[in-house]
Amino acid sequence: MIIIMKPNASKESIERIKEDIVEKGLTIHESYGEQYCIIGLVGDTSKIDASQIEANEEVEKIIKVQEPYKKANRLFHPLNSIIQVGNETIGGDKIAVMAGPCSVESEEQIIQLAKDVKKSGAGFLRGGAFKPRTSPYSFQGMGLDGLGLLKKAREATGLPIVTEIMSPYLVEKFVEDVDVIQVGARNMQNFDLLKELGKTKTPILLKRGLSATFEEFLMSAEYIMSEGNENVILCERGIRTFETYTRNTLDLSAVPVLKKLSHLPVVIDPSHAGGLWWLVESLAKAAVAVGADGLMIEVHNNPAKALSDGAQSLKPEKFDSLMKNLSVIAGAVGRSI
Amino acid sequence: MIIIMKPNASKESIERIKEDIVEKGLTIHESYGEQYCIIGLVGDTSKIDASQIEANEEVEKIIKVQEPYKKANRLFHPLNSIIQVGNETIGGDKIAVMAGPCSVESEEQIIQLAKDVKKSGAGFLRGGAFKPRTSPYSFQGMGLDGLGLLKKAREATGLPIVTEIMSPYLVEKFVEDVDVIQVGARNMQNFDLLKELGKTKTPILLKRGLSATFEEFLMSAEYIMSEGNENVILCERGIRTFETYTRNTLDLSAVPVLKKLSHLPVVIDPSHAGGLWWLVESLAKAAVAVGADGLMIEVHNNPAKALSDGAQSLKPEKFDSLMKNLSVIAGAVGRSI
Amino acid sequence: MIIIMKPNASKESIERIKEDIVEKGLTIHESYGEQYCIIGLVGDTSKIDASQIEANEEVEKIIKVQEPYKKANRLFHPLNSIIQVGNETIGGDKIAVMAGPCSVESEEQIIQLAKDVKKSGAGFLRGGAFKPRTSPYSFQGMGLDGLGLLKKAREATGLPIVTEIMSPYLVEKFVEDVDVIQVGARNMQNFDLLKELGKTKTPILLKRGLSATFEEFLMSAEYIMSEGNENVILCERGIRTFETYTRNTLDLSAVPVLKKLSHLPVVIDPSHAGGLWWLVESLAKAAVAVGADGLMIEVHNNPAKALSDGAQSLKPEKFDSLMKNLSVIAGAVGRSI
Amino acid sequence: MIIIMKPNASKESIERIKEDIVEKGLTIHESYGEQYCIIGLVGDTSKIDASQIEANEEVEKIIKVQEPYKKANRLFHPLNSIIQVGNETIGGDKIAVMAGPCSVESEEQIIQLAKDVKKSGAGFLRGGAFKPRTSPYSFQGMGLDGLGLLKKAREATGLPIVTEIMSPYLVEKFVEDVDVIQVGARNMQNFDLLKELGKTKTPILLKRGLSATFEEFLMSAEYIMSEGNENVILCERGIRTFETYTRNTLDLSAVPVLKKLSHLPVVIDPSHAGGLWWLVESLAKAAVAVGADGLMIEVHNNPAKALSDGAQSLKPEKFDSLMKNLSVIAGAVGRSI
Repeated sequence: MIIIMKPNASKESIERIKEDIVEKGLTIHESYGEQYCIIGLVGDTSKIDASQIEANEEVEKIIKVQEPYKKANRLFHPLNSIIQVGNETIGGDKIAVMAGPCSVESEEQIIQLAKDVKKSGAGFLRGGAFKPRTSPYSFQGMGLDGLGLLKKAREATGLPIVTEIMSPYLVEKFVEDVDVIQVGARNMQNFDLLKELGKTKTPILLKRGLSATFEEFLMSAEYIMSEGNENVILCERGIRTFETYTRNTLDLSAVPVLKKLSHLPVVIDPSHAGGLWWLVESLAKAAVAVGADGLMIEVHNNPAKALSDGAQSLKPEKFDSLMKNLSVIAGAVGRSI
Repeated sequence: MIIIMKPNASKESIERIKEDIVEKGLTIHESYGEQYCIIGLVGDTSKIDASQIEANEEVEKIIKVQEPYKKANRLFHPLNSIIQVGNETIGGDKIAVMAGPCSVESEEQIIQLAKDVKKSGAGFLRGGAFKPRTSPYSFQGMGLDGLGLLKKAREATGLPIVTEIMSPYLVEKFVEDVDVIQVGARNMQNFDLLKELGKTKTPILLKRGLSATFEEFLMSAEYIMSEGNENVILCERGIRTFETYTRNTLDLSAVPVLKKLSHLPVVIDPSHAGGLWWLVESLAKAAVAVGADGLMIEVHNNPAKALSDGAQSLKPEKFDSLMKNLSVIAGAVGRSI
Repeated sequence: MIIIMKPNASKESIERIKEDIVEKGLTIHESYGEQYCIIGLVGDTSKIDASQIEANEEVEKIIKVQEPYKKANRLFHPLNSIIQVGNETIGGDKIAVMAGPCSVESEEQIIQLAKDVKKSGAGFLRGGAFKPRTSPYSFQGMGLDGLGLLKKAREATGLPIVTEIMSPYLVEKFVEDVDVIQVGARNMQNFDLLKELGKTKTPILLKRGLSATFEEFLMSAEYIMSEGNENVILCERGIRTFETYTRNTLDLSAVPVLKKLSHLPVVIDPSHAGGLWWLVESLAKAAVAVGADGLMIEVHNNPAKALSDGAQSLKPEKFDSLMKNLSVIAGAVGRSI
Repeated sequence: MIIIMKPNASKESIERIKEDIVEKGLTIHESYGEQYCIIGLVGDTSKIDASQIEANEEVEKIIKVQEPYKKANRLFHPLNSIIQVGNETIGGDKIAVMAGPCSVESEEQIIQLAKDVKKSGAGFLRGGAFKPRTSPYSFQGMGLDGLGLLKKAREATGLPIVTEIMSPYLVEKFVEDVDVIQVGARNMQNFDLLKELGKTKTPILLKRGLSATFEEFLMSAEYIMSEGNENVILCERGIRTFETYTRNTLDLSAVPVLKKLSHLPVVIDPSHAGGLWWLVESLAKAAVAVGADGLMIEVHNNPAKALSDGAQSLKPEKFDSLMKNLSVIAGAVGRSI
């Protein structure tokens, strides 16, 4: 951490800040520029609250040098993390494909779709039982019944299931029933939920918030990891920008950047990012080419009758042809799917 | 709602969509442009899921005409809502000022600050007991102990207290102890929490999410109101933009826009918006001039020792002088403070 | 400037960088943290190209300490700049009001509007002769004829005229005819145009680009000033964000921030920012309260027949009543209008 | 175009608007919802100024149905445009690769780099002679001398040259000397420049502005095309978002979206988008996978000594290996490179 003092900061003020820092067990390197006095802090700055120092009226600004995340940091964990889920892995050479409907709607629907996506090569079944909807008047998911149907679909196909949690009340239930627990973009900074999930061992698929920086995203992973659960999978699903033609703007740079900063696997959700079914195929190809460890894709047997997010769902036949095309791209970047 | 079909959409497709709509009890107006067929829906479109219709490959796009919020909509409730909190009101002629420290830190601190802000004219004491922090390693608030200290400060001064809730587990406790329950920006779309708060009668101060549109913000208010609690206060606290000099970008247009769309009171938080103490005074003045119903301002006796957000806190003396200046502006726009 | 080396950067690499810097006449302060080597540069870093240093594979990142603008920097020019335009000033106690139609449309229109806004208290007449329009098929302004009509309106009223330049070809003509030359948001980084304007002495009203940071905005002012023309007026007119209800998001923090960083006057354009006439009054009041040195307001005698931007224009009667209200706010912040 | 009247709009107001529209030769379809009266316009709405209608106080909002661009619109030109440049094409099966340094720095440099990139398979030489720099104190390019060196490099290798224009004064010179004229992101709405380029026949590579929507981007292409030059190549180079880790956020959805809306070729610039050399390879692969018609890549023999943008430049060896990898991905999507 580096403290830049205001031009003409008083000696007393500089001394007081230095004393505070030394008291906390850190060492100081000072340097004087033409206009500025700069105080460099050496040691474990995680004990220092930047906002406190900035509150000093003679401080110009604070610059952080070290990333504030530890357990998620590749610096202290150089090898890729590979998350084991049943017989499948996420983060290894094989690209993990999680496919299925936005919402579980009926037993017939979810079992048929599970069989379809498995046949096309998906390794995981995704499906929403509890749905975060912008409007209280929209379909909110089948809830616990939906969870029951997902389990039936798992029995029928062997596919591990991925589904979203919205409430800390349900953590125990999800741990029992679900293979990968998804935390949605809107809950990325629901810290109470993150802490509870950190006390489990179940893999967590954490989606990037709509306007979360990479650092904030990794800090949310850190919330889970700091409680003891290191099985975190990061998922980029589009960020909010000025462009409204697409639902969100898929930020594919997230893959190389997050993989540089962190050892955690990174998955892409092209369905939510674009919000338009005809964008899914090309974005999925790009995701594989850019180095993603997995894909999350919405598939629905009848999108025009889907109870949620029909506009971004692929039909099973389209998904099947997409998987064939992705397989070629995966080969071209030295991976399998 | 208006459906715009693709150029060259087939008659069958158009007929099928029309049948679906008529089945749901709505009436249709069709019009044919040079390139597009347009289907207008008349009636209660809240039963229609736009995403379902957009999933049809021959649909170009859907345009919504009516706002999706009902209870928060000024159209159905033309007069301003005035929220009663003890002897104070929010939404009337008098501008409600909520002041106090970011975090409750000790009995002495909070009682002294409560006395200070009361003396300067604040009508509410704000103070965090449960703090949402980006980092799991930062101070997380004093929790239930902090809540207890806030109650002591209320006893000592008579000021109603405003404090943030983070977990649905604590709703009952907060209803008992707190005068205004705050929902933070990060939880604006924590729908499970909103629903539980909707079952209470306690006034809720709902902060706008960092990248929430006005419509999404009002839909979150609608989540609370649709469960029965109509005592919702909207709070603009800065949105996330490309500009990083200020912590967030305060969107003061939010005041006239939200007051046009909705009857709910609108409060401004200039402390979080700018993130810099020296911005608070001028932004607070602008907030009063633009027509805000209230202000939320961080005040700390020793910002450079504050356990959170020191950089944006005013000292009690500065707050006192600010209140005097605000009083003149309030008079200039026909209000009191 | 501070250079942060990668963890495990080689000694050779560090030495090479240090040599390069010393060669350019700067001094070095080094400090070693637990994970990082940090090189601080002391001296005139304007000769150093950060991008060059970042290209070194062992450099983690570069942090700039000093603002890159000199002539626009308040550090070297502590007093407010006051720009003289005829008998009017911009940047002093009196708030400068520039009012008039988006486009000049006819002699009768512009002269009548000039008389109207003068009577209400405006100090400047604004009006577009050359219009930057998103579509090539929209009305592009009356061009040189419009300029001629503006001059007639100036003769008739004595109001100095403010109008936008789009082409470097016309600089000479504008210098001759115009009192304040406006550079629009879209041309904020049209550096060739800025340089040519820098060679004149005419006051330049420079609008902030739609996604320009404060630093980039000041660097564009610096382009003009570094060529010799220090008569630059900054104008905030709304930035582009995710919110689309308003045309742009007016960033009123720009006023205190720009006035802290720079000595140049800051003007607000509430008409373009919101894009909606019913927002203009409340935003203008906020602008005065926040400390703006001036306002730019669109006034049109018949907005529903305006050839451009009718939706954001006030009628002369509304402008007149607005000026009365602004006068009270100006008094409340110790200024006149 | 659809006009939505305010709830309770007066009959007179509705009638007046209808008359205005009918006067302009359009037909009207009216429909009445529960709260709103909706007026649909049929016919050529390009004559209608939406802002004028919105200025009517009883109009709620205007919705545009038809895209405002004609010549760039795929609707009226269903086949892909293929731009011929010497023996190369842009927009066909072969992916066009434009490589070279950010700035031309010396004869030796540019000729050597031209040879290098040609050997690796690039079809075009890019290099800046006139450089738009944020700071007036940064290197501004070699100007006309740089243009001369680019021509020498073309002679030496046969590669057509791509370089940026900043001033309308130089259009004639560029038409004579340059094979593809680049318009930078900062000048995307420099309409005077676009119009002058529209009067030539030289292919124009138009970069998307930092905060330009797809529609605004295509409208800028329309400015060029409406003057007669239909040889426009669109280039996505990253948009400005809240994320600052990368210089900009590369929006790869731009490729499928722009190709759906328009027949023009779409090129990706991964170097400017990320601003970091180690991101270029993975983003370039993703660009090819997503369906881009071309790539623009910065290559420099000694990035740490480059006079501009060193941080994002690849060394020739890296570029060579990148081209080999891209060739495999191109094959996987049925194209060559």
